[in-house]
Amino acid sequence: MLPNSPPDNSIGILSAQSVRIEQPLTLACGVVLPAHDLVYETYGELNDERSNGVLLCHALSGDHHAAGFYEGDDSPGWWNHYVGPGKPIDTNKFFVVSLNNIGSCFGSTGPTSINPDSGEPWGSDFPSLRARDWVESQKLLMEHLDIPCWAAVIGGSLGGMQAMRWSLEYPDKLLNAVVIASSMKLSAQNIAFNEIARRAIKSDPNFCDGRYLQEGTAPLRGLALARMIGHVTYLSDELMGQKFGRELRIGDLIDRNTDPVEFQVESYLNYQGDKFSGTFDANSYILITKMLDYFDLSREYNNDPVAAFGHAKCNFLVVSFSSDWRFAPERSREITDALLAAGKSVSYVEIESDKGHDAFLLPNERYENALGGYLKRVASTLCVPTGADK
Amino acid sequence: MLPNSPPDNSIGILSAQSVRIEQPLTLACGVVLPAHDLVYETYGELNDERSNGVLLCHALSGDHHAAGFYEGDDSPGWWNHYVGPGKPIDTNKFFVVSLNNIGSCFGSTGPTSINPDSGEPWGSDFPSLRARDWVESQKLLMEHLDIPCWAAVIGGSLGGMQAMRWSLEYPDKLLNAVVIASSMKLSAQNIAFNEIARRAIKSDPNFCDGRYLQEGTAPLRGLALARMIGHVTYLSDELMGQKFGRELRIGDLIDRNTDPVEFQVESYLNYQGDKFSGTFDANSYILITKMLDYFDLSREYNNDPVAAFGHAKCNFLVVSFSSDWRFAPERSREITDALLAAGKSVSYVEIESDKGHDAFLLPNERYENALGGYLKRVASTLCVPTGADK
Repeated sequence: MLPNSPPDNSIGILSAQSVRIEQPLTLACGVVLPAHDLVYETYGELNDERSNGVLLCHALSGDHHAAGFYEGDDSPGWWNHYVGPGKPIDTNKFFVVSLNNIGSCFGSTGPTSINPDSGEPWGSDFPSLRARDWVESQKLLMEHLDIPCWAAVIGGSLGGMQAMRWSLEYPDKLLNAVVIASSMKLSAQNIAFNEIARRAIKSDPNFCDGRYLQEGTAPLRGLALARMIGHVTYLSDELMGQKFGRELRIGDLIDRNTDPVEFQVESYLNYQGDKFSGTFDANSYILITKMLDYFDLSREYNNDPVAAFGHAKCNFLVVSFSSDWRFAPERSREITDALLAAGKSVSYVEIESDKGHDAFLLPNERYENALGGYLKRVASTLCVPTGADK
Repeated sequence: MLPNSPPDNSIGILSAQSVRIEQPLTLACGVVLPAHDLVYETYGELNDERSNGVLLCHALSGDHHAAGFYEGDDSPGWWNHYVGPGKPIDTNKFFVVSLNNIGSCFGSTGPTSINPDSGEPWGSDFPSLRARDWVESQKLLMEHLDIPCWAAVIGGSLGGMQAMRWSLEYPDKLLNAVVIASSMKLSAQNIAFNEIARRAIKSDPNFCDGRYLQEGTAPLRGLALARMIGHVTYLSDELMGQKFGRELRIGDLIDRNTDPVEFQVESYLNYQGDKFSGTFDANSYILITKMLDYFDLSREYNNDPVAAFGHAKCNFLVVSFSSDWRFAPERSREITDALLAAGKSVSYVEIESDKGHDAFLLPNERYENALGGYLKRVASTLCVPTGADK
C-alpha cells in the first residue's frame, strides 16, 4: 500500500498498457500511417458477453490516465471522481477503456514519435488530424480488445465530438453516446482563441518551425502562454471572482508605492502555464486545436445536423453547464434539437454550475446523478451482469 | 479640399497641438514628473463664459485624435461618428478637448520619451500610473486652457474610469460625467486577460527587459499577440459569428486534403495584431493595462462605492451594451446603484447591441440618441450659447 492509499471507491494502483496497431490507418487528410502505437488503460472487467465495454474519449490536453493512481503518485487520473467502483461510470459494471489518442504526446504515435521515413521526430510534419481519425484509431483498438460493440462512448468537450462522430461513422458499434460540454462545431470566437494560442507557440523563437526536438530545445514560453489563454476561457468569470477576486499576491495598491504589485490571479495563471508547458508537446497542441477548429459534424451532410444524426442508431445523453461560455449550453441544445428532429432518443440535462467549461471534470451532485443514473440504466440493459459486479 | 473630403457633419482638416506642462506632477506612486508634454486636439469653440468645455478621455489604446481628418489621411479619429457639428457630442455647442494621456505613445510624455535623468528613453522604467494620474495631468491641461469647469467629462472603458475619478477628485470642476461601458474595478477574469497580454509581450526576446528602443528593436510579435487577445475579448461571440462564421480564407475542409486550411477569423486577427504592433508601444501597453487592473474606485473609501460617490457633485449618464462581456452591463448597473444610493442624479441606459465592448465606438441609433439627448440638455443649461452655435 502507498502511504496515501486511494480511497475505497477509487481504482487502485495500475499501470498503462501499450499496443502497436499494425493495420494501416488512412487519415482523413489522405496520409496513411502504416502502423501506430496506442497507450491505454482499462478499469473493471470485461464480461463474458463482451458487452460492457465503455470508451472514454479525452479532450485537448487529456491522456489515457483517466482514473486510479500510479505507484508512488498521489494524484489520480483526470476523471477519477467519475470513474471507479460505485461511481457514475461504474467499474463494477463496466469495462472502461481510456486511451491516449494519436497526435497527442503521452506515448501514442504523435509529433514526438519518430517518423519512419525520416528517422527523426515527426514534429510539425505530423499529418493534419480530424476527430474521425481518432475514431478510426479507437475502432482499431476496439478490434484489438475484441469488443464487438461499446455499451457507451463517453466524452467531454473534444471528447463529446468523438462520441458524436462514433454515432455517425459506426452506428452499429455503440449503444449509447454521452456528449458532455461539447458542440457540433466551434464558433468563430472559439477558433480565434485557438489561433492566438497557436500563434503564441509559433512566435516563440524556440519553436524553430516545429523542429525544436531536433534542435534540443522547446517553445516553453509560447506553450505556457497558449495554455494560459485556454485556461482563462475554461473558467467562468464568476469562478475566477470567487477564487481570486482582486486579492494581491505581492505589493499593495496604496499610494506612494513604487514596489511591484501582483494579483493572485496573475500568479496562478503563470503557474498553470509553466506547469503545462513542462508536460505537453507544442506540436501536439497546435495539431489538436486545429482538429477542434476543423470539427464540423454536419459538413458532409449538407450542413444539416438532422440529416447527419439520421445515420445514428444509439441513444444519447447530452450534458451542458450553465457557466460554460466556451461550449455554452446553447451548443448542447442545438445538438439535442437536431437529435430530436432526427427522431433519436436523447436525454438532455443542463447543470447549474459556476465552474465554466472545466465543470465537466469536477464534482457536482446533479451531474453525478444524471450521468450515474443514465449509465445505471445502460448497465441494466446489458444481457448478463459482469462477474465483477457486487 | 482633399480628394476624399470629409462629410458635411465632420470636422474638417485639423492638426494636433502640443503643450509642455511645466508644473511638477506628483504621481500616485510618489514619483514626481518635473514637467510633461501633452498632445491634444480641440473641436468647436470655447464660449465667452468658458463654460462649454467637454473633456474626452481615451481608453487603453486611444489617442488625442478623436474626430476629424488629418491632411492627406482619409481615416478619421476614433470617435468621429460621435464628435462633430450636429453629432451627439456637438461641436456647434461644445468646445471639445481630446488629449493623449501620459504613459501612452502618441506624443505625450511616456515610455518612449527621454528620461531626463538618464538621457535615454524611459522604457519600462516609466513610473507606474493610476487613472488618477491621468486626471491630475488633465487638470493641468484644463488650467492651461483656462477652463474653470467642464460641462462634461466623457469616456468609454478606461475613459469612463477617468470620468468617475474626476467626479471624486474634483467635484467642483465638472457638471456632468458620462461613463460608458466601464466598471468600478476589473474582475479577476479581466486582470487575467491583461496579464496574458503582458506576458506575451515580455516573452518576446525582442522585449529586452523593456530596453528595446536602446537595442534598436521592438517586441512586435509579443505586442501583436497581446492585441489579438484584447481584440477577441472586445468583440462579442455573436458579432464574430456574423462577421466570420466558419468561412475559410484558404484551403478546404474536404477529405484527402493535406493543404493548409485557414479560417477568415484567423487571418483577420493576425492582421489586426500585426497592424497594432506597428503603431503602439509595448511598454505603454504594459503600463496602461496595469493601470486598468489597479483601478478600484472605492478602495480608499473602505471599499464602499456609495461612500465614494458621496463626494461627487455632478450629474451622471451611465451607458452599457448588452453583448459587452469584458465590461458587462452588470458592472454599469453597480455604478448606477451606487450613485442612486449616494443620492446622485444618474441616467442609465443599457443599449441592445451585438458588437461587444467595441460598441461604444460604433454607430448605434439608440446610443446616439441617448448620448445626444443627454448632452443637448447639458448644452441648454449653459448660460449663453457659443458664437459657433448654428
